[in-house]
Amino acid sequence: MPHITLDSDEPGIRGLFRFRPETARPLNELVEVLLRDDSTLTRGERELIAAYVSALNECKYCYSAHAAYAAAQLPEGMDLVERVRDDLGAAPVSDKLRALLGIAGHVQQSGRRVTEDDVAAARATGATDREIHDAVLIAAAFCMYNRYVDGLATFAPDDPASYASRAERIAADGYLALLADSQ
Amino acid sequence: MPHITLDSDEPGIRGLFRFRPETARPLNELVEVLLRDDSTLTRGERELIAAYVSALNECKYCYSAHAAYAAAQLPEGMDLVERVRDDLGAAPVSDKLRALLGIAGHVQQSGRRVTEDDVAAARATGATDREIHDAVLIAAAFCMYNRYVDGLATFAPDDPASYASRAERIAADGYLALLADSQ
Repeated sequence: MPHITLDSDEPGIRGLFRFRPETARPLNELVEVLLRDDSTLTRGERELIAAYVSALNECKYCYSAHAAYAAAQLPEGMDLVERVRDDLGAAPVSDKLRALLGIAGHVQQSGRRVTEDDVAAARATGATDREIHDAVLIAAAFCMYNRYVDGLATFAPDDPASYASRAERIAADGYLALLADSQ
Repeated sequence: MPHITLDSDEPGIRGLFRFRPETARPLNELVEVLLRDDSTLTRGERELIAAYVSALNECKYCYSAHAAYAAAQLPEGMDLVERVRDDLGAAPVSDKLRALLGIAGHVQQSGRRVTEDDVAAARATGATDREIHDAVLIAAAFCMYNRYVDGLATFAPDDPASYASRAERIAADGYLALLADSQ
């Protein structure tokens, strides 16, 4: 049961978007820019950072959703998402993506946990300032979304199909199109 | 030294806004809605929640800034901000605000840390669903802003006057007006 009375039975953050459309708009604009706008990181790679941080925060709804969105946009699919979640050091990702995921994992603990060595290591793999910036902000943003979803005790479906069907729409049309549909 | 090369010497999140205007816009729209739009919580009370969470995250820039913005908009000024920061249980705030600050403090640890008892206690003081929602989202959002600012090792001025002068502009015109000025 959610901690507050929502106007719908939509799960996770979707019920919160409907409850408070004034905040839904900037929250969706932010994730659209970070995860889908022009970037040298693919959309799949950026969704993977979001899923990884959500797993570290043990946010079932956000992890399930962004794992599905990452899987839909990565050639390696869900297998890679789960390998990153289970053992980042051993997962078959590029050195650059591993370094950026490592920074994201430190941001999840605290912004103060990101060291000059973390950043130097990422730079040595070819990561740019923009990529480092975006990895930090994606990780920070999911520390918000995860707390928002779980802090209000929203409902997270168990069925992976409910996330997978939404993943197709996100991959095709993006977050703002889906928000418009639901309001 | 910031972890990335910024285009300006503006401190804290301001240098990041200039570096990445595409994300600056929704980040400012979010804080404008949460801390300044119509609400049964005063602007000073909402800035106090932001300052309190920033103190818990040990984010010097965000705490200094939002403590100044809260002080500028609370009759009790900086003394109350510091008393809340130092001992929430003993600070001279209403029972409702103390309960909402308590929820915010739990969100700072993890969304999963907010209990039904926390919410029932807030409701017993008269807190509404909307106020509980906004307290959770303000706390979650500052877990993002704090990580963004510190995860990129931005500079935080020591001089309180640099925050106080900005507080007057924020109180008068809001976050979006200040963002427009700087871009």
